[in-house]
Amino acid sequence: MQRKKIVTIGGGTGSFTLLSGLKKYAVDISAIVSMADDGGSTGVLRDELGVLPPGDVRQCLVALSDSSEMLRELMNYRFADGGLKGHNFGNLFLSALEKINRNFSKGVEEASRILNVKGDVIPVTNKDTNLFMELKNGKKICGENEINHDYSIEKIGIKKNYLSPAAMANKSAIEKILEADIIIIGPGNHYCSIIPNLLVGGVASAIKKSKAIVVYNCNLVNKKGHTEKFTLDEYVDSINGYIGSDRIDFVIFNAKKPDARLVKKYESQNELLVLFDEGRKLKRKYRVVRANILSDQKHEYSDSDALAFQRSFIRHDSDKLAKILMMLLELGEYENIIKEII
Amino acid sequence: MQRKKIVTIGGGTGSFTLLSGLKKYAVDISAIVSMADDGGSTGVLRDELGVLPPGDVRQCLVALSDSSEMLRELMNYRFADGGLKGHNFGNLFLSALEKINRNFSKGVEEASRILNVKGDVIPVTNKDTNLFMELKNGKKICGENEINHDYSIEKIGIKKNYLSPAAMANKSAIEKILEADIIIIGPGNHYCSIIPNLLVGGVASAIKKSKAIVVYNCNLVNKKGHTEKFTLDEYVDSINGYIGSDRIDFVIFNAKKPDARLVKKYESQNELLVLFDEGRKLKRKYRVVRANILSDQKHEYSDSDALAFQRSFIRHDSDKLAKILMMLLELGEYENIIKEII
Repeated sequence: MQRKKIVTIGGGTGSFTLLSGLKKYAVDISAIVSMADDGGSTGVLRDELGVLPPGDVRQCLVALSDSSEMLRELMNYRFADGGLKGHNFGNLFLSALEKINRNFSKGVEEASRILNVKGDVIPVTNKDTNLFMELKNGKKICGENEINHDYSIEKIGIKKNYLSPAAMANKSAIEKILEADIIIIGPGNHYCSIIPNLLVGGVASAIKKSKAIVVYNCNLVNKKGHTEKFTLDEYVDSINGYIGSDRIDFVIFNAKKPDARLVKKYESQNELLVLFDEGRKLKRKYRVVRANILSDQKHEYSDSDALAFQRSFIRHDSDKLAKILMMLLELGEYENIIKEII
Repeated sequence: MQRKKIVTIGGGTGSFTLLSGLKKYAVDISAIVSMADDGGSTGVLRDELGVLPPGDVRQCLVALSDSSEMLRELMNYRFADGGLKGHNFGNLFLSALEKINRNFSKGVEEASRILNVKGDVIPVTNKDTNLFMELKNGKKICGENEINHDYSIEKIGIKKNYLSPAAMANKSAIEKILEADIIIIGPGNHYCSIIPNLLVGGVASAIKKSKAIVVYNCNLVNKKGHTEKFTLDEYVDSINGYIGSDRIDFVIFNAKKPDARLVKKYESQNELLVLFDEGRKLKRKYRVVRANILSDQKHEYSDSDALAFQRSFIRHDSDKLAKILMMLLELGEYENIIKEII
């Protein structure tokens, strides 16, 4: 039997979680990665070396790498002192490979070989482009990092998201989307990691055209000032809007309540759990899988264990997420049979 | 038959040439590497990150690496712009591994695994130490880089070379020396790469004690202001002096005249070919193998080919050097048999 073809679309951290779970199954994975990042170590490298943003690609490579734990740890190592302070070793690795190969995608391919990566990590575009957001009051926010830290966005309202210069998708990204059995969007920062993929020329139309089932992994927590008031439906509508059709078939939505103290900590920073609108009258054009996809909290938090508590987060669980996605992949086939019978 | 055990002692560039040739034979190679380097990218990393000097070790790792050409090229890649300018990727790789493993030797071991290194690369010491040179007029020169660029040394005369703080050798360096069938010293910068190894506590006495044949690969060109007036005998005497016995059995000395124009170019910079004193009366306690060990000049230089000429050097040939050394390794055995008959 041919291996199922999975395409993921996202940025760094969310894709890392997702891919870490999926890679345990015998499937063909292609991770399409946003190229809008311009903050931190990645931003410095873009500015100073003129390279494409390595950060998100690196996280996907490490997630799918079958190399030693040491090599994976090395790729995530961050220098702590001197002129290298803040630079991530894996970012330097990708930037050097881009320079040697004079092409970012070629560099990523070489990195995949060195790191023994199972699957393909595909930068959504090879164009050196920047993310822009124009608000309804005319304000223009330049770059992913600026957008990420601007908390006035939701209040003022977005007029337009775009890339400048305009960028066409990597040919292989389009091919993988068209051949996919399942396309998985998210989790990830909505305006900074998810949408930027859909702004790249050719991506939205390929998703529309593809026969894959399309699944959206909704975030667990709303982003302050960006999607603070979103319910699940607004996320889906937003993404479908960028695709240009009601293409999302399934949404995986968390049904498990996180630790109440953790929720409070998030709420104190205006980060609220994404809500499911139980009373919605309008029939949804997608089906919602409500399940426990929450990463287990390892510790019981006593008041004296403040540090462990500070370090804990509301996060997806890689394995739980992957399990449900594999089930949907099967369900897809099952439903095709049903349809033929009816 | 047990594989022959080869130990090389040197620094970066010279050891790279030597090891690149030796690795083609079915022998056990241990490359003992000087840890005195404090210039360039290595110096910055020592200063800013507090790591041990990676540069020379990196060159030996790359020489013995069986990994892809791309990975080897990556290890030698030097960033050209911004805050990373001048940093060698391989140096950052070793520094990050030292930081993660909290130990330089452990980091080198991990690097050897990642780079698929055939043999052992052993930093002569794990002590963070510096090379010092005291001249006869009382002047003290601090650090390998300063010494390397001081051209008054030979004229004033050296009173003492030493490491501060004093450093003991890595246990495995001593073990390898004691077990070796052949110990190969050089080629390499005399005071900056070769002698610093012999200043490390335990190295000289281990060489004295070892039953290995000891071969010295004499440099091709004298270093301006350091060993400008040295003939072969002075190099041998100097090294034997640091070992504390006439331990050198063989010297490999170049017999092929380099291109006359190339010699002139070197001479114009006060870099003269090392001479062999044909008229020496004192019987030598070592035997000299005079052979063509010169790297072939790839180009015929016309006057119009000035750039290619500028870039050409008087260099050892890896393969020729290795061939003679392998012959000496056999000869060593042969001579043992002869002695038993007499």
